[in-house]
Amino acid sequence: MTHQEPDIRRLFEPQSVAVIGASHNETKIGSKILANIINGGFPGRIYPVNPKGGEVLGLPVAKSMDDVEMDVDLIVTCVPAKYTLDAVKAAGARRAAFNLVITSGFSEVGNIDLERQVMDVARASNMRIIGPNIFGMYSAAADIDATFGPGGIRKGGVAIITQSGALGLAMIGKTGVENVGISAIVSVGNKADIDEADLVSYLVDDDITDVILMYIEGVKNGDRLVEVLKTATRKKPVVVIKSGRSKRGAVAAASHTGSLAGSDEIFDAVMRQCGVLRAESIKEAFNLCKFLPGTGIPKGDNTVVITNGGGIGVLATDACEKYNVKMYDDVTSLKEIFAPATPAFGSTKNPIDITGGATSADYTLAMDAALASDSIGSVISLYCETAVFDADNLGDMIAKNTKRYRAAGKPIAFSVFGGEETERIQNELSKDGMPVFGDVYETVCCLGGVYRYRRYLEQWTDEVHEEKIDFDAIDQVVAEARADRRSFLLADEGRRVMEAAGIPLPATKTAKSMEEAVKLADEIGYPVVMKVVSRDILHKSDSGGVALDLENTEEVIDAYEAIMRNCRTNVPGARIQGIQVMEMAPPGVELIVGARRDAGFGPIIMFGMGGIYVEVLKDISFRAVPLNRAEALEMMKEIRAFPLLLGVRGEERKDIESVLDAVIRIGTVIRHVEDISDIEVNPLVAYEQGRGAKAVDVRILLTDIAGGDTNA
Amino acid sequence: MTHQEPDIRRLFEPQSVAVIGASHNETKIGSKILANIINGGFPGRIYPVNPKGGEVLGLPVAKSMDDVEMDVDLIVTCVPAKYTLDAVKAAGARRAAFNLVITSGFSEVGNIDLERQVMDVARASNMRIIGPNIFGMYSAAADIDATFGPGGIRKGGVAIITQSGALGLAMIGKTGVENVGISAIVSVGNKADIDEADLVSYLVDDDITDVILMYIEGVKNGDRLVEVLKTATRKKPVVVIKSGRSKRGAVAAASHTGSLAGSDEIFDAVMRQCGVLRAESIKEAFNLCKFLPGTGIPKGDNTVVITNGGGIGVLATDACEKYNVKMYDDVTSLKEIFAPATPAFGSTKNPIDITGGATSADYTLAMDAALASDSIGSVISLYCETAVFDADNLGDMIAKNTKRYRAAGKPIAFSVFGGEETERIQNELSKDGMPVFGDVYETVCCLGGVYRYRRYLEQWTDEVHEEKIDFDAIDQVVAEARADRRSFLLADEGRRVMEAAGIPLPATKTAKSMEEAVKLADEIGYPVVMKVVSRDILHKSDSGGVALDLENTEEVIDAYEAIMRNCRTNVPGARIQGIQVMEMAPPGVELIVGARRDAGFGPIIMFGMGGIYVEVLKDISFRAVPLNRAEALEMMKEIRAFPLLLGVRGEERKDIESVLDAVIRIGTVIRHVEDISDIEVNPLVAYEQGRGAKAVDVRILLTDIAGGDTNA
Repeated sequence: MTHQEPDIRRLFEPQSVAVIGASHNETKIGSKILANIINGGFPGRIYPVNPKGGEVLGLPVAKSMDDVEMDVDLIVTCVPAKYTLDAVKAAGARRAAFNLVITSGFSEVGNIDLERQVMDVARASNMRIIGPNIFGMYSAAADIDATFGPGGIRKGGVAIITQSGALGLAMIGKTGVENVGISAIVSVGNKADIDEADLVSYLVDDDITDVILMYIEGVKNGDRLVEVLKTATRKKPVVVIKSGRSKRGAVAAASHTGSLAGSDEIFDAVMRQCGVLRAESIKEAFNLCKFLPGTGIPKGDNTVVITNGGGIGVLATDACEKYNVKMYDDVTSLKEIFAPATPAFGSTKNPIDITGGATSADYTLAMDAALASDSIGSVISLYCETAVFDADNLGDMIAKNTKRYRAAGKPIAFSVFGGEETERIQNELSKDGMPVFGDVYETVCCLGGVYRYRRYLEQWTDEVHEEKIDFDAIDQVVAEARADRRSFLLADEGRRVMEAAGIPLPATKTAKSMEEAVKLADEIGYPVVMKVVSRDILHKSDSGGVALDLENTEEVIDAYEAIMRNCRTNVPGARIQGIQVMEMAPPGVELIVGARRDAGFGPIIMFGMGGIYVEVLKDISFRAVPLNRAEALEMMKEIRAFPLLLGVRGEERKDIESVLDAVIRIGTVIRHVEDISDIEVNPLVAYEQGRGAKAVDVRILLTDIAGGDTNA
Repeated sequence: MTHQEPDIRRLFEPQSVAVIGASHNETKIGSKILANIINGGFPGRIYPVNPKGGEVLGLPVAKSMDDVEMDVDLIVTCVPAKYTLDAVKAAGARRAAFNLVITSGFSEVGNIDLERQVMDVARASNMRIIGPNIFGMYSAAADIDATFGPGGIRKGGVAIITQSGALGLAMIGKTGVENVGISAIVSVGNKADIDEADLVSYLVDDDITDVILMYIEGVKNGDRLVEVLKTATRKKPVVVIKSGRSKRGAVAAASHTGSLAGSDEIFDAVMRQCGVLRAESIKEAFNLCKFLPGTGIPKGDNTVVITNGGGIGVLATDACEKYNVKMYDDVTSLKEIFAPATPAFGSTKNPIDITGGATSADYTLAMDAALASDSIGSVISLYCETAVFDADNLGDMIAKNTKRYRAAGKPIAFSVFGGEETERIQNELSKDGMPVFGDVYETVCCLGGVYRYRRYLEQWTDEVHEEKIDFDAIDQVVAEARADRRSFLLADEGRRVMEAAGIPLPATKTAKSMEEAVKLADEIGYPVVMKVVSRDILHKSDSGGVALDLENTEEVIDAYEAIMRNCRTNVPGARIQGIQVMEMAPPGVELIVGARRDAGFGPIIMFGMGGIYVEVLKDISFRAVPLNRAEALEMMKEIRAFPLLLGVRGEERKDIESVLDAVIRIGTVIRHVEDISDIEVNPLVAYEQGRGAKAVDVRILLTDIAGGDTNA
């Protein structure tokens, strides 16, 4: 990116727009977009461009870009793919700032060259490209609807960034049905230039945007996206739907967008790390977008459920567990707070059951009590249609309490369940920007989103932890391997990298004689392991070159003699450099720490339990690098077997801090040593608290260089 | 239950009904129910009963039950709790068949005695009670709405049985909004007499009922429910919502219904075993109830997704993985089938992408192809609103194809996503009994339900597997423990039960002398374990009475001497009966098999991996007993660590058949030996294929008898 890049504000608040390929034929996309711009009430200058000239939709048509003002803010390119390059050139010549390339037929169908040419031309004139292969964009700030969607977009606080065109278009209609108001919609398509990170950077400081919703199928330049999102989510919530969650779905996504979907586990972990709320379905995403704006961040965890029906209260309780919403459980305080608002036969235990006889006044009474109590963080209010309730007041009751709670910054989530009348009230409230859900699970899911967001904000820190590492020593190891034309490191080289990274290893020394072996074993401490050191002996175990669990001098002497004899017999002529004497690692908890350079997100780190935990139970977790110690600890806690590190069945707690330290160090290496593509420490053995953790085995791969040998 | 019990058909198709407590006051429940019966168009005889006499809603009021015909089919009791016993007596005296006791204030608020008295009176006259604490019932077969709900119930094929009153009432309204047609609704309340099992038994053979929906908070007499459900689900689908899924929710459910919620894991497993489709939320349950009737059982697994949008297709693919719907993946066949129906730039890989340019005719073309192909089991058809599509034909297209697929017995699930017009069409189709969903996850969830149901039907067998067991020997052991006033079995008694059940144990013999010990060790085979046998020595290890891993005659001799010496020194005067010589079980996979008598479901069996798998990872599964081998194998396969039994990391497959056999045998014991309340074999060690499995340790508890010692 160069210094003269246009300010992205000109994309969202253009003063002038030119539609290249504005058609006289109403069924053409160029005509539809022009109509939407005009009908949407865009107050700026509009230039339809078409070599045929004449007039379209009441506007004079420029025969070429030469007839359009210099420095036009926004171009919409709707000509067929084969004319696109020329059109982009012409726009560049007029120093246009942004260009929505609607046209498809580029990298998404394998036409990578043409896309590259378009980008080259655009870059040469500092013009930014959105697309190609998009449906356009809408921006409420400029009243511009430069899409070929249905029009009539409802203004509001949700900014949508979508990679899928068809889905994005249909979403426009759906936002109308679901009463979701929009601040901006941008279709990013092939992301040849502008991507989610660019847009989020702008939208996060855009006053009319309350929440950002992204639909993503695959990530490019994920490390930049991570950086942008970590800052953005501090300011406003970001919700993401990523399809390709399943393996088959990822394949389908890759085939239809040409994007590299990557591992969904990694995407999921990284989004969590960035404080982004991932929604499974569009429905869930819309619900979050309706609920989050206006709803404050709760001051505390304690949630109370107020209900007029026991059954629905129990369902809400179940949903609270599912969505990690902590219900207030101090029965004494609950009784104190709610006794005046709860009739006999009701219950002040959470759920607060104000009974089937409750009226709107009774609800307000209970919500008064909850609002006044500082120990209550948020409220879920459930209504089950009854004959006794004064249905005429339902809408008012909900609206008034929503406003009071919003003013106080205390989240409240309403759920109503009943017939036609209840449904109608629910709809009306929704239109007025007060979301009320019909299903308790949907309601609680939204509140769960608020709490997920809160936990992120609480834990947030801009610190990044790295450890001092001897990079020169690592570079030396890498250089040796490169000189050898290898793309993998030998065991000893791996050990040297670990040493340079400051990660403890089992003690190892090489003896040249039997006397030295005995001396080294004494120094290291028993039991020890012995291994022949010889470049000529590849299969050390098979050749009798290894002895395990040697407990005293006598056994070391016997083993030394046996190894020498075995190797001489089995590999005649082998040059033996010595015998390695190694500390035999005492048993501990076997872990795996891995790190690699992900195609989407750049450097990432992986943590899991060794052996069957990884292989059978797939009990692993991920984070993007760089990361801080809190994030690393979160990653470790995510695995199901984490309690094993805390100590179970009377075992002592393991040295979690040392494991954390190793994670940070391995992260530091993968981030800064670009020659290294993969590190797997397996096992990293964790001992009891205070006794550290040791990298017993390590496998390191280098980034591929043509012709290198990649067999490790 | 006695022989003269009235036919339950009289409950659902009454000829006559008496409302005891029919009030002149319109706001009273008695008045509302009477009004609903009249307004609902009940064609039979209606008797309002009220000591005040006169006329209510145009009907003459009987002053007492004496003025009501003998053998009246249905009584609705709406008097306050304190008058209920007399009212039930009076109804019994007129030989009434069924009595809906609306009144609350019984066991649900701790008034257990009054409920028992009501039941005693009812039983004495062979009258069946529904409730107490209910909102009544509706039956489409008799056009009777004997509830105090909103009225105007829409007729259809869904029968609802609900334990929650408030939720059930609100559900009536919601069925209207959601276009769910009803064949019957029964509120079961406290289930003092009639419970879900009774109702399901009837409804399963009721012609107008297509699907049964139950809302359950707690189970009583679960073993009977299991028996009934296993047969019922063979004939029509049963959907269940059970709240109290979470621990807190279970407590809340118990507190508001007075029912014992029991473990949700067990409920969940048993429902699966019975072929019941459990829905998480009411929304999911309603969706299943709308989708299942009319939809056939697919002949095969292969599902194809037909879509006009790539993004929504990927979301559906993700949802297919989530809901266990297998997508057809034979690309050659897919190409052959769909190439004629797919334009260029589309995709015949599943999802079949007929592109954003698709019209209704194009959809029908693709659905024609899918319908004609025998290799395709079911279809998911997705529509993303576009400008090109002929929206006027959307409704017709879906209706026609739904009908054709239904006629062919091939399931098809539609999902539409767009604006107001799309929404309107979706609603109209739904009203006509053709469910179309807006969210792809909801759509695929329904199809997933059909496949879950299909898998159950395929695996179903009425076989129950039990093994021959020496019950006399077990009874003898139990009798000895009872004589000792113990509620637990000693280690040796546990071994005797295992032997009687035919479950292999590590070989064990008792030696009276050193010579005998050597002889027995030789017979058993090395290595062996030795343990002192003495009633006077409680802590055998601490007293030096145990020796492990003895590998030869010499070590056995040394150990014998050491044990005798240690015990004489440490427990002076102890009488030593001998020394136990035991096979030292070789290492294998450690499993746990447990069995107990569940408060809700009666005998159940549990399976899991030993050690941390159970304790930390909670990796366990359950089934109700009796069960067959297929069910037992399913239970075993459900644990995440199951691959360890198949052999991982080059290990051999374990003896799964022997484990299965042990499961069946333990199930047989818990089912038939009512004195035993708990069995835990931990570990059951599974060896390599053909080498069996051995119960290394077993712990057995007896059912509690007042005054018995329960410390095992």
